[in-house]
Parts: sequence; structure tokens; C-alpha cells
Amino acid sequence: MNGDYRPTPQDKFSFGLWTVGNPGRDPFGGPTRPSIPPHRLVRLLGEEGAYGVNFHDNDLIPIDATPRERARILTDFRQAMADYNVCVPMATTNLFSEPVFKDGAFTSHDADVRAYALQKTMRAIDLGVELGARVYVFWGGREGAEVDAAKDASEAIKRMRECLNFLIGYVKDNGYDLKFALEAKPNEPRGDIYFATTGAMLAFTYTLDDPEMVGVNPELAHEHMAGLNFYHAVAQAWEAGKLFHIDLNDQKPNRFDQDLRFGSEGLKAAFFLVKFLEDVGYSGPRHFDAHAYRTEDEEGVRDFAAGCMRTYLILKEKARRFAEDPEIREILAELRERGSLVPAADLRNYTPETARNILDAPLDRHRLARRKLRHERLDQLTVDLLLGVR
Amino acid sequence: MNGDYRPTPQDKFSFGLWTVGNPGRDPFGGPTRPSIPPHRLVRLLGEEGAYGVNFHDNDLIPIDATPRERARILTDFRQAMADYNVCVPMATTNLFSEPVFKDGAFTSHDADVRAYALQKTMRAIDLGVELGARVYVFWGGREGAEVDAAKDASEAIKRMRECLNFLIGYVKDNGYDLKFALEAKPNEPRGDIYFATTGAMLAFTYTLDDPEMVGVNPELAHEHMAGLNFYHAVAQAWEAGKLFHIDLNDQKPNRFDQDLRFGSEGLKAAFFLVKFLEDVGYSGPRHFDAHAYRTEDEEGVRDFAAGCMRTYLILKEKARRFAEDPEIREILAELRERGSLVPAADLRNYTPETARNILDAPLDRHRLARRKLRHERLDQLTVDLLLGVR
Amino acid sequence: MNGDYRPTPQDKFSFGLWTVGNPGRDPFGGPTRPSIPPHRLVRLLGEEGAYGVNFHDNDLIPIDATPRERARILTDFRQAMADYNVCVPMATTNLFSEPVFKDGAFTSHDADVRAYALQKTMRAIDLGVELGARVYVFWGGREGAEVDAAKDASEAIKRMRECLNFLIGYVKDNGYDLKFALEAKPNEPRGDIYFATTGAMLAFTYTLDDPEMVGVNPELAHEHMAGLNFYHAVAQAWEAGKLFHIDLNDQKPNRFDQDLRFGSEGLKAAFFLVKFLEDVGYSGPRHFDAHAYRTEDEEGVRDFAAGCMRTYLILKEKARRFAEDPEIREILAELRERGSLVPAADLRNYTPETARNILDAPLDRHRLARRKLRHERLDQLTVDLLLGVR
Amino acid sequence: MNGDYRPTPQDKFSFGLWTVGNPGRDPFGGPTRPSIPPHRLVRLLGEEGAYGVNFHDNDLIPIDATPRERARILTDFRQAMADYNVCVPMATTNLFSEPVFKDGAFTSHDADVRAYALQKTMRAIDLGVELGARVYVFWGGREGAEVDAAKDASEAIKRMRECLNFLIGYVKDNGYDLKFALEAKPNEPRGDIYFATTGAMLAFTYTLDDPEMVGVNPELAHEHMAGLNFYHAVAQAWEAGKLFHIDLNDQKPNRFDQDLRFGSEGLKAAFFLVKFLEDVGYSGPRHFDAHAYRTEDEEGVRDFAAGCMRTYLILKEKARRFAEDPEIREILAELRERGSLVPAADLRNYTPETARNILDAPLDRHRLARRKLRHERLDQLTVDLLLGVR
Repeated sequence: MNGDYRPTPQDKFSFGLWTVGNPGRDPFGGPTRPSIPPHRLVRLLGEEGAYGVNFHDNDLIPIDATPRERARILTDFRQAMADYNVCVPMATTNLFSEPVFKDGAFTSHDADVRAYALQKTMRAIDLGVELGARVYVFWGGREGAEVDAAKDASEAIKRMRECLNFLIGYVKDNGYDLKFALEAKPNEPRGDIYFATTGAMLAFTYTLDDPEMVGVNPELAHEHMAGLNFYHAVAQAWEAGKLFHIDLNDQKPNRFDQDLRFGSEGLKAAFFLVKFLEDVGYSGPRHFDAHAYRTEDEEGVRDFAAGCMRTYLILKEKARRFAEDPEIREILAELRERGSLVPAADLRNYTPETARNILDAPLDRHRLARRKLRHERLDQLTVDLLLGVR
Repeated sequence: MNGDYRPTPQDKFSFGLWTVGNPGRDPFGGPTRPSIPPHRLVRLLGEEGAYGVNFHDNDLIPIDATPRERARILTDFRQAMADYNVCVPMATTNLFSEPVFKDGAFTSHDADVRAYALQKTMRAIDLGVELGARVYVFWGGREGAEVDAAKDASEAIKRMRECLNFLIGYVKDNGYDLKFALEAKPNEPRGDIYFATTGAMLAFTYTLDDPEMVGVNPELAHEHMAGLNFYHAVAQAWEAGKLFHIDLNDQKPNRFDQDLRFGSEGLKAAFFLVKFLEDVGYSGPRHFDAHAYRTEDEEGVRDFAAGCMRTYLILKEKARRFAEDPEIREILAELRERGSLVPAADLRNYTPETARNILDAPLDRHRLARRKLRHERLDQLTVDLLLGVR
Repeated sequence: MNGDYRPTPQDKFSFGLWTVGNPGRDPFGGPTRPSIPPHRLVRLLGEEGAYGVNFHDNDLIPIDATPRERARILTDFRQAMADYNVCVPMATTNLFSEPVFKDGAFTSHDADVRAYALQKTMRAIDLGVELGARVYVFWGGREGAEVDAAKDASEAIKRMRECLNFLIGYVKDNGYDLKFALEAKPNEPRGDIYFATTGAMLAFTYTLDDPEMVGVNPELAHEHMAGLNFYHAVAQAWEAGKLFHIDLNDQKPNRFDQDLRFGSEGLKAAFFLVKFLEDVGYSGPRHFDAHAYRTEDEEGVRDFAAGCMRTYLILKEKARRFAEDPEIREILAELRERGSLVPAADLRNYTPETARNILDAPLDRHRLARRKLRHERLDQLTVDLLLGVR
Repeated sequence: MNGDYRPTPQDKFSFGLWTVGNPGRDPFGGPTRPSIPPHRLVRLLGEEGAYGVNFHDNDLIPIDATPRERARILTDFRQAMADYNVCVPMATTNLFSEPVFKDGAFTSHDADVRAYALQKTMRAIDLGVELGARVYVFWGGREGAEVDAAKDASEAIKRMRECLNFLIGYVKDNGYDLKFALEAKPNEPRGDIYFATTGAMLAFTYTLDDPEMVGVNPELAHEHMAGLNFYHAVAQAWEAGKLFHIDLNDQKPNRFDQDLRFGSEGLKAAFFLVKFLEDVGYSGPRHFDAHAYRTEDEEGVRDFAAGCMRTYLILKEKARRFAEDPEIREILAELRERGSLVPAADLRNYTPETARNILDAPLDRHRLARRKLRHERLDQLTVDLLLGVR
């Protein structure tokens, strides 16, 4: 860790084109800053120390681009990637902006809308793979409902599965080295989105044709929009071997999707997330799915991008210090070590004998309840460490 | 459907002892009505038309009961079950009230606490099976954290898995005909509970020794506490073949766990839930996990229990009328039927040819976007139907 | 009440131009239906039975309209008002769409931005008054912060007060017969908006130059976004004599601003609101601040508008039935009537004697606690009534 | 500021007896630690560096205490106050624990319940004043509803006003030097509590007999339970001259009332709060209304109390550094300073001339919109400062 928290490509920070390229439009007002073309965004990211750039198909190639425009954009984009040492670790499809998707893409009642969504996705997969992507994210922004009368939720699930299985087939048939990462969101833009949480998406992966190929892309803001603990969700995905990608940002719980600069709102939640990713050795990109405030110009967008990465590195350093802190270590050891009546191994392995041992063990609940658990102290030490006074 | 919405055992309504037996204590005040012994609760339920009664081990047998007290309670309870034609479809373990569980039961750091939790659960399973239970519910009220520094979430997941696998072994070894249903809750009493949503629990079941034996027990209030769409969560569980039990109640979203009378808060959400259960032919118990307001005496508790069942039956009747309503049918048909360019069957079955067909299909997104979707009208018809003016 | 719930101008239903004119744009996608010019919206509203139409200045007159365009629009608009018998009860200013307001209008640090906001508002007041408005609404969509470091909240409050006092001066100086109604919203588009709730706005009115002239415009969705009880907020405003206007719509709590069709989500909350407005004799417009789903075309927009009014009328009829229902009346009487030891009048009027009487009264808390309160039954009767089975 | 963040009485930190005395009971489990008598809690607080101790009447004197018990408790309490240099800055009444209050105290339908609540409060005021309290807090935990059919909200408001006016009379008649501070909470233990936010309470104070005597007691957790910005609410109360007391703690938004250690959850929100209190020179007690986790024993309770105060002092030091930071000062100056076309003074003072000046000013919205607002940078500097890397 360098002392000044400046990112390098080894830190594997990535941003979507739609993040640093966000022009500041919101539901109540128009853009506040000009659009920046993709190759200039790559430059901006490279100069700030990022490793990768991700995109939705139409972030890079406008939906009605001519072949000539497409070719020129790609040339400029590749050149910028080379010039600024920025790769494309992930790609995804925009299945939400166009009116055709107003009632869903893969879950639309209309077979032609589903076919169009598949067509668009196959082409976008080709584009992503062509540019080097190894992970393909699916966020179904329109796969939900305001009017539950209008669509059977279990039918929607089946349609989603059919489409994903189709695309699994496509990827394999083309021999692409690509994994799928499903991203959940509870609501917005739809009233309620199917597979509302990372957990629901995780469950869904087990029902697909090739569960090994499909994992999840948890997003901090999306879990916080439902008031959930992001670190817990990420840990479950990791423990299941399905943390294929991650979206970092920030969010005030239980409100509209804010996509704030990473670490700008919930410092403690961000800390436990970074600590977990570093502790377990997560090796994928640290992707920031956020954007600058509407107040910012291009310099402010750079401040935003630099801030996401800087705060990650600061928290990473704090995670290291947490692991080395003598008093924290002492409390953590105290929480764990203890001679037990029943061998811990017995609990891991059912046999009639271990069951009998446990049933017969003279376990005194009052005595066990008296165990000292120094959580207040431990949490205060964490706060001290976060605040830099330890 | 009888015209007066009076429940019968064929409706399969069940209540926990802890629901009609709730004495009205809350975090800011003591009990407001006397406790009622289990056999009298069975009578109350039988008289009101319920089919089943469920319990945590210590709802029925106090934790420090002598063998003699236990025997007497069981005799009275069985007698009441026979007298009032009430069965025990489900049982569960109280792994949250005792101080021993203050930092978790199956996820405690202390092997002896985990052993005690297993001991308590094995005994409770024996009791449940003895009384006829076919489903065993796990709600881990203390399996969570206020202080994420104190416990590694992925370690907690592993401990939970070990304990459930152990209990799967126990059930099989004893030849019990029993399924497990895991119940999620996002928070309360812990700051954050592991496996926060039905989706997360569903995902977890796939990682256990016998995934077929383990499903979920979604609870309306618990999903609504996270602002999620309960019908969507239930549909996912059902579609995965894992809806083994269900907890019905009501809740204002994003606040403390209210366990309100079913259908007393979110009438529309309750309607879509009932409609789904009836449409798909869910055949398990309709379990109410709720309790009467603190204002109520025993007569009020009866009003509460009767109200839960009555509202379910009213909504069931409305679901029937929804299915038969000519204008609703017309709109639903309109939403579905349409000649499509790409055969729907193509989307279900990847082959190089179907992929080619889809890639080549001249799908015009502007034309597809113009499709008429009469959601406002459909939703208003649903509201009319709910309000009884249609 | 006519039996078929068809609105008439006597029902005083009004809509904003921005509601029926909403083209279906959202943060993740573009418009899904064409814009409709103001005079055609007036026709649509008149044909559907509305009484009034409201507008932000730029809903009616585009911000860069030439005087000639302005004149033509106004001519067409007035003609449509006359043709379809639609009046303008309320007007307001758009102080949120333009980038100039990106960090606030009345609370901007920049005196020129505040001056521009005042200039725009004075002109918009002139326009509103010219077209007949008697209430002027202030919703400060940009008066808030993502970055609390950037603005002192108490300074923002003072600036807001200065601007409102200035405008009070303007209205009086011009001899306009106009009241101000302040509208609160907790968040979106800003991270946190100042004066987050109707209560906060109500408090603020007391600190203005002419508190009598300034009341509130509570919006259902805005209170529900903070998970609050809208009826309680409206009752407080009414009881304080400051319910000058009201915005009706619907919303799933604690998420993005949905502006759903009135009565489409929280039927019970909508019922208590309508019941209150009708019971107390609120005589202002019933304004719907909502819009149709993105799935809808112009016919769907009509369905949306008709649905808002229809559901209001259905609930109004239910409020009448509630008041007349014999069992409900009996329970309500039971909750109230009771001989008391201490005369109720004593509690209303402090004197040393009434204090002494109360201090000396032998009030037995255990006896008082036993009072029967049939809330479960009463609430079930309400549900029965709402569901149309009573 | 001493370097080690150790509290002294000059810091004016106070705790309720119910906070450090909380035995760890919650809705799902019994106490996890023994009760500590009041005089021992005073000692604990004094030893940890607190300035004051507050209480509900029955925290100090059990509701059924004999005169003799009462006398002994008071003797011990006073002795401890003297021994450990701890004063009583505030007192309050428990109007929520007893079943008599199950449907409200001041808002009960039952005149005798209201009389009992007044009786209890007058006695509690006497006790509080006797022990030195200068502020009297009202938190109406039961003044709300689950069943809105059962109580007219505007009638509840009137009853609340009558009771508070009565008590204003009582205080004046007795010549007490005492101010009232009203505390809002959105929900829990009631489904919805009247006057749900600090703003609503603030508005209510203006309608009382002596508005000068009545202010508010905002509580961090209570505003966060509604997802609101606490600093904004406190700033409004302060700016109105009505911040008479404050309750500090912490809370995950939009869930059950957690009463966590101050600064343990939302570090940024806590920072802006402390910064505001220190910047404006708030001179009242900094009261912590929180309690230790259920995992803790008495030593852990000390850790909890020490942590609340320590984190406050750390944040106070950071507020000082924020004010002195050169780059922060530069950005803040940049946000403010600007020659304006319209004199800022014009905006503060309506005259026909100032109105004319503003109406005529050639304010170009496009130019004004281009103003640089370095919010991302400023916020990152705040984060750096909070994390101690600046």
C-alpha cells in the first residue's frame, strides 16, 4: 500500500462508461453537463488510475449508429484503451431505456420483444467479448411490475430462465470464455422488480442450465435500497462461489437509487465490505457503478472518480490495521477460544453417536449465557480505527 | 365457497400458540391480557374454525417444566386437539428468547451454544413429530449481528449449514417424515439477520446436504419489513418447488415487526398473494403468524383470529371473480395473444438455427413499442373488484 | 352521490398539466407517449369530469416561448377552459428543471440565482392569478443537499424565509387574492430536502411575515416516501387551519416517488384520508398529482384520470356508510362514553382547583386498564366495508 | 480539547437512568443482565465522566413504591449525585409502560385515563424539579394508533393540546423554572404515532398557550427511523429558538428503534450534527438516549457509555479541523463569494422598487447554471477528515 492512496491498475478499479459519462439528468431536471465521448472517458479513467472500463452496448455504440459510425467509435475506443492502459473486464446490455422494453425485456408477454432482447443481447455479447470482457452482467431494469394483475410472476421467472438458458447456449456455442453475473434491484424504475435481492438472484442461478457459469453481481446501493446489509449478501455469494462481479457505490437506505460516490454515505458498511473483499482475496474488478452529483463539471467528475478509488484504498488500509490491532485481536480471540463440552467436530458430522453425545451433554444454558462478549468495546475500536484516532 | 366467509378445517388455516396466546407485551410495555394455557388456545382455535395449531417447543412445554408438568400439558393438549378437531401441521424451536442465544444459536462462536441449540432442536423435533408435524420451521431470530466486526458472515453461513445438515441427518436417521422450511427476516431482534430475505434462504437450501428436503417458509411481514413484494418472493419459492409453508400476517413496510391481522394493512398485496396460492393450488396450511393489538382481551383475540381467516376467504372469493371477470379476461388475453415474427418456441430452445433466426429477424423496436398495454384499466378493475363495486 | 361514481365539477377534482401530460420518461428511459398540448389536456380533463387544471409556469408556457407563442397558447388554453368548463384553482412555479437550480432556487448560495427564482415566481404568480388561481403552491424540489458540508441548513432556512416573505409582499402589493401552500418532500431529486415533512413546513409557516396567508399542500406520496401516516399529517394541518390545498396520488412507502393513480396502492390509507376530508368538510380542490404508467397511451391516460376520481368517489361513499353502520357506531360510542371520576371539563382548564382535583382523584390504573376497546372488531368491520362485503 | 477525548462535566454529557440501566430485554427475549439500582448508575456515570442523569418518574421510583422506599431511594440518589458530581438536567414521565396507557395517555378517549396521565405527570414534574431539572421532556409513546377508525386524529391533537396547556398552567402556578421539550417519533410502539416528526412537534408548539415555554427534543434515531436528515431537523428547531434538549444515539434507517451507541452507525450524519451543535453554540446537555447491546455485562455498559461520549468528542475535534482546513475554507468561500447583479439585500426586503429591480434584471439562466460548485471535492475532503487521513 502506498501512503498516498493513489490507485494503480493493480488495484483493479473499473467504471462504467455510463458512470463517468453521466450528464446529470434526473427525473426532475435535464442534463447539467455535456456528454463526453467514450474514448475521452477512457482517457479520463486511465489518467485517474483506473484499470477497466465497462459498458452497456449503447453506451459505446448508439442504438441507431451506422456501420461507419460504429467502426469509427470502436477505433477511437481501442486506441484510447491502448494509450491509457485500460481494459474492458465486463460488458452488459441496455434492456431498459428504449420504449420497447416498457413492460419488460426477457419477461415481456410479447415473444417478439423477448426475441428483440435476445437479439440485442447476443450482439452485445459479441461486442463485449470482442473488446475483452470476461464477465457479462444482466440487470433487468424493466423486468418487474407496477400492476401485478398484468403478469404472472412465476411465468415471468420461467421466461427469464428461458432467455438466460438461451444465452448460455449462445455463449457456449460460440466458445466464448464468459461468465454471467446477475444483478438484483428491488425497485426503480419498476414498482417492484422480479428477483429483488442478491439472494433471490443467487437462488435463481441454481435453476439454470449451467449453474457453474452463472453467478451474481451484487450492488451496494441496490441492497441498501431495501435496507439490507450488503456485506452479508456479498458474503453469501462469495461463500457459494458465485461472486463474479461487484458494483460499488453508496446510497441512503430506502429511497430512490442515488448511485453516490463509493464511501460517501455509509462508511462503516463500506469498511466491512472492503475488509471482506480483501480478507477473502476477491480477485475480480472493483467496479464503481455511481456518478457525480448534478453540481459537477468534468473536473468534478474526475473528483468523483478519484474519490471512489481513494476511499476504497483508505478502507483497505484500515482493514489491514484492523487485522493487526492488538486489542482487536485479543477481543476476537476471546470471542472464539473456549474449551467446549461438546467437540466442535461433532457438530459438523451427524452420526447416531454424535447426536447422542449432544443430546446427553449437560449443557447449562444459564452458564453458557454468562459468557463475556465485548461487542461494545470491539465496535468502538472499529469506530476509532475508522475515524483515524487509533 | 360459502357465502358468509366462515372458515372450516378444509380451508387449512393454522395459528401458532404464540399468536393467539400473545399477551400483548411490547418493548415499551408489559402484558395487557392474561396468558391462556395451550389446551384452551386449541379450543379457541377449533371454535373459530381453524384447522391447525403450531408451536415453538417452549410455547407448549415451558423450558423448565418437570416431566410431570410436561406429561400433563401434553395430555391436555392432545385432548383438546381431539375435542376440537385441530391438528399440528408444523412445529419449530425457540432459539431466541433465552439469554444463551444472545449472540446466535446455530451461528454462535461457542461450540457449546451451538450444541445446546442442536440438542434443543432435536428434542423439539421429536416433540413436533410426536404431535403430527410434517413441516419443521427454522427461524433464526438471533442469527445475525449488530457488530459485524465480531463475526465473519461467511463463517456464520458455514455454521448454519453444518447445523442444518446435522439435523437433516437426525431426521433421516430417525425415519421422520418431515420437511424443513427456512424462514428469513431482515432485522429485529438483531440489527441485521443473516439470510435476510426469502430469496437468500432459497439460495441457501441448494447448498445443503439434501436440497429436496429443505424449502422455505416466507412470511409476509418479513418481506414487507424490507419493502419487498411478497407475492414475487412466494412465486419464486413455489416455482422452485420449495414453498413448504407460509406465514400470513400484515405489516406497514420498513418498520418494526408488527404481525398485524392478515389483510388489515395491504389489501392489494394480500389479494395477489391469496390469488397466487389459490391459482397454483398450494395445498399446505395457511398459517397466520400474527397477534391481536394490545388493546384486546380474549374476545378481541377471537375477533383477531376470525378476522385473519375471514379476510383470506373474502380475497379467495375475489380471486375467483377476477378469473371470471369478462373485461379482465379480455385485457389479459389482449396482453398475451399476438402473432409474433419469431416463434415463441425458438426462444425456449437454443440451437445455432434458432439463434440465427433471432439474430436475423427484422424486429422493429419502434413498432413493438407501440403495443397497447391496458395496465391502468386493468389495475382499476382490480381495485373496483377489491372494493366490491364490481 | 350518484350510483355510478362518475365525477362532476361539483366534486372539485383537479389535475396538473404535468400529470395527464406526463410523457412517461423516467430515470432509466425516455418518453413512451407523445406530449399533448395544454388545451388538449384541458379538453381531456373536462371530458372526464374534472373541475380544475393546475400548472407550473412552464407546463403552460415553455421557458423560451416568444410573446407570440405565449399569446397563442393562452388563447387556446382559455378557450378550452371555457369549452370544457374547467377552471384553474392553483398554480405553481417550476424551480427545479433548469440547470440553474441545480443547487437550489430560494436556498441557493448565489444571490442572482435567488433573484432569478423570485423573478420567475413573480411572473408565474401573475400568470396564475390572471388565469384565476386562488392558491399558489411552492414545492422546492432543489432546496436540499447531497453534501451537507456545502450549505448551512439554518442559513438555507433563512433564505427560504426571505424569499417567501418577499413574495408575500409582492402578492399584497398587487392586491392579489392568493394564498400560499407549501409542499414538503423528504428526498428526490435531492438527497435530503429541507423541511422534509408537512409538519416541518407547517412549523415554518408560523415564522413568516403573514402566517395567516401561508398554509400547506400535503402530498400523500411525499409523506408515504418517509413511511408516515398521511391522514395524521393532514389532520394536523387542518386542525391548525392551514390545509390550503392537497395532492392526492399513491405510493409504495420508502422508495422513489411513484405518483401512482390515487387509491391504487394503499386503499386503507386512502380511505381514512377521504373520510377525513369529507367528514370535516374540506372545501378546496381534490388535486391529483400523479401520472399514468409508462405502458399507457392517451386512452390509458384517460383511464388513469378517470380511475383517480372514481376511486375517490367510491371511498367517499364508503365513508358515508362507515358513519351510518350500526355496529361501527356502537363500537365507536362504546370507545367514548363513560362516566368519569374526573370531569372532562376539568382537564381543559387549569386552575389550582382542577389541578388539586386531579391530583387527589383515586384513579386506579389497573381498573382503568381493563376497559374494553374493540379495535380488532372495528378494524375488521372497516376492512369488510372496504372490501364491499358489508 | 484534550488529546485523549476523555469527557468531563464541562462537556455536558447526560444519560437517562433507562439507558445505562437497560437490562437487555427485547421483544424476542428476556433480560441478559441484572438491573442496577439508580444510585449505582449515578456512580457509573460519574466515574465515566458524565455531567447529568435524567429519568422517567418510574426509572427512579417504582410505580408502587411505598413512601418509605421512595424516601430511601431519593436519599441514596441524592448522595450519589453529590458524591459523583452528577446533576439532573432533565426529567420526564413514563406514560407508556403501564397497560392503562394501552390506547394513549393524553390522547386517550377516556377522561379518567387522561386525568391519570396528568396526575402522574404533575407528580413527576414535582419530583423532577425537586431534583433540579430545568427541562421537562414529553414523549408520548402510546399517543398513536394502529386502528385509525378508532380515534379522530384532530380530536387527538386537541386532547394533547389541552393536557399540555394544563401542565403549562401547573408549572406557572407553582413558579417552576421549567421548559417543556416535545419529542416526536414516527412509530413503535404504536403503528403510527401522532406528531410523527420533529417538524410536526415544532408546528404544534406554536398552537399552545405559551409557545415560548415549549420547544422540542429531537432524537436522532427517531428521525432516522423515518429516513430523515436529523441535522436538518435540528437546524430548523434551533433556528426557531426551540431546541431545548436533544437525544443522541444511532439507528439504521427505517427499522425498529435500535437506540445504538452514538456514532456507531451513521458517522457522517453524526458529524454534521455535532458540527452544527458546536458551531451554533448549543449550550444544553448532550443527552444520550441509547443502550448497550444485549451481549454486554456491566463492564460493557461502561464501554457503551464511554463510547458515546468519546465519539462525540472525536467528532467535535473534527468539526474544529473542518473549520480550519484551508482547502475546505477555499471551496466554501468559492461557493459563496460572487458579485451579483441583484444586490442580496434587495431579496430580503420587499418594496415595489426591489420587486421591479428583480423583475427587470437581465438574469441569464444559462450563465448562472455554469457556476462551478465543487461538491464532490468538498465531500471527499469531509470523508478524508472523518477517516483521519487529512
